[in-house]
Amino acid sequence: MAEKVILLDLFASMFGMRARVALAAKGVEYEYREEDLRNKSQLLLESNPIHKKIPVLIHNGKPVCESLIIVEYIDELYDVGRKMWTKNGEELEAAKKEFAEILKQLESELGDKAFFGGERFGFLDVALVTYSTWFHTYEKCGGFSIGEDCPKLIEWVRRCLDIDFVSESLTDSAKVYDFALMLRKVFGIHTS
Amino acid sequence: MAEKVILLDLFASMFGMRARVALAAKGVEYEYREEDLRNKSQLLLESNPIHKKIPVLIHNGKPVCESLIIVEYIDELYDVGRKMWTKNGEELEAAKKEFAEILKQLESELGDKAFFGGERFGFLDVALVTYSTWFHTYEKCGGFSIGEDCPKLIEWVRRCLDIDFVSESLTDSAKVYDFALMLRKVFGIHTS
Repeated sequence: MAEKVILLDLFASMFGMRARVALAAKGVEYEYREEDLRNKSQLLLESNPIHKKIPVLIHNGKPVCESLIIVEYIDELYDVGRKMWTKNGEELEAAKKEFAEILKQLESELGDKAFFGGERFGFLDVALVTYSTWFHTYEKCGGFSIGEDCPKLIEWVRRCLDIDFVSESLTDSAKVYDFALMLRKVFGIHTS
Repeated sequence: MAEKVILLDLFASMFGMRARVALAAKGVEYEYREEDLRNKSQLLLESNPIHKKIPVLIHNGKPVCESLIIVEYIDELYDVGRKMWTKNGEELEAAKKEFAEILKQLESELGDKAFFGGERFGFLDVALVTYSTWFHTYEKCGGFSIGEDCPKLIEWVRRCLDIDFVSESLTDSAKVYDFALMLRKVFGIHTS
């Protein structure tokens, strides 16, 4: 099968241009499709059902994330994660759903690779692994288990922690949880 | 002179942990200093006068940005940049000041290097160069010249544009400006 790469984009998007520069740097040929953001294509809505945002890169029918887009997904985890220990009721439920969807997207991006960059612990792994120290807090406050929905992601966390310089650099999950509970008190956040 | 590296951090910070993992991966020895965010140290306030946020990495007395921190600076440019063509009066003036400070920080990070990663066009260059297509719009709407304050940054843009796959991937600045003016009309934004 011939390789087919499609980029759903908007000509003035800085994030779209990042994908274009990265593709061009790697010499990848692709079909550019300009989106009308007031009338998004079915392909965009199906490929990026969570955020419905450009750019989206589609490789042989499967949406993929270019590394700088993954970094943005990871940073969104930060904002959604905060809600897990600061909100309750409907807001918490909505945040849990969004959080689970981002994690699933990241897990599918990991696929069967050992690390996000491939066989070796790399840049994207550094960016994401530090969030895993907050997973325990999210699970306790949100009342759910990440490993149930995303077992491969939890295996990836373990794989990262097997690397000495990683485990030695990360704060213990229990300490992070205590910190979150302390912040709740300091800021007078009532979650139940 | 012995190399001296200090990390101003907070134990539970995911962004701080990124810096710790990256330093450990490179085998850099450093002094870890925990900050009290309710009583920030003079060194933190002086080292990061714009955002006053941790983590801050200080190498031989000079604050430096770890690459993932630079990516965050770059993404903040996006939010501040938007204000340049959507705000007026005091809001615009405040945004211009903040924008100029972020650019100066990035320029000082570039230093005398050809590219952010060193001699070759790399990851950080990809992330930032796409923003340069909006510089013309910011200058026209904000009434200022980036090159006046940050000549080295503009030289760096030119250096990037000398690379064929970069210049071929970026949207023309004049088209971006027309697009911004069109958006202003569509969203009924009045700036004067």
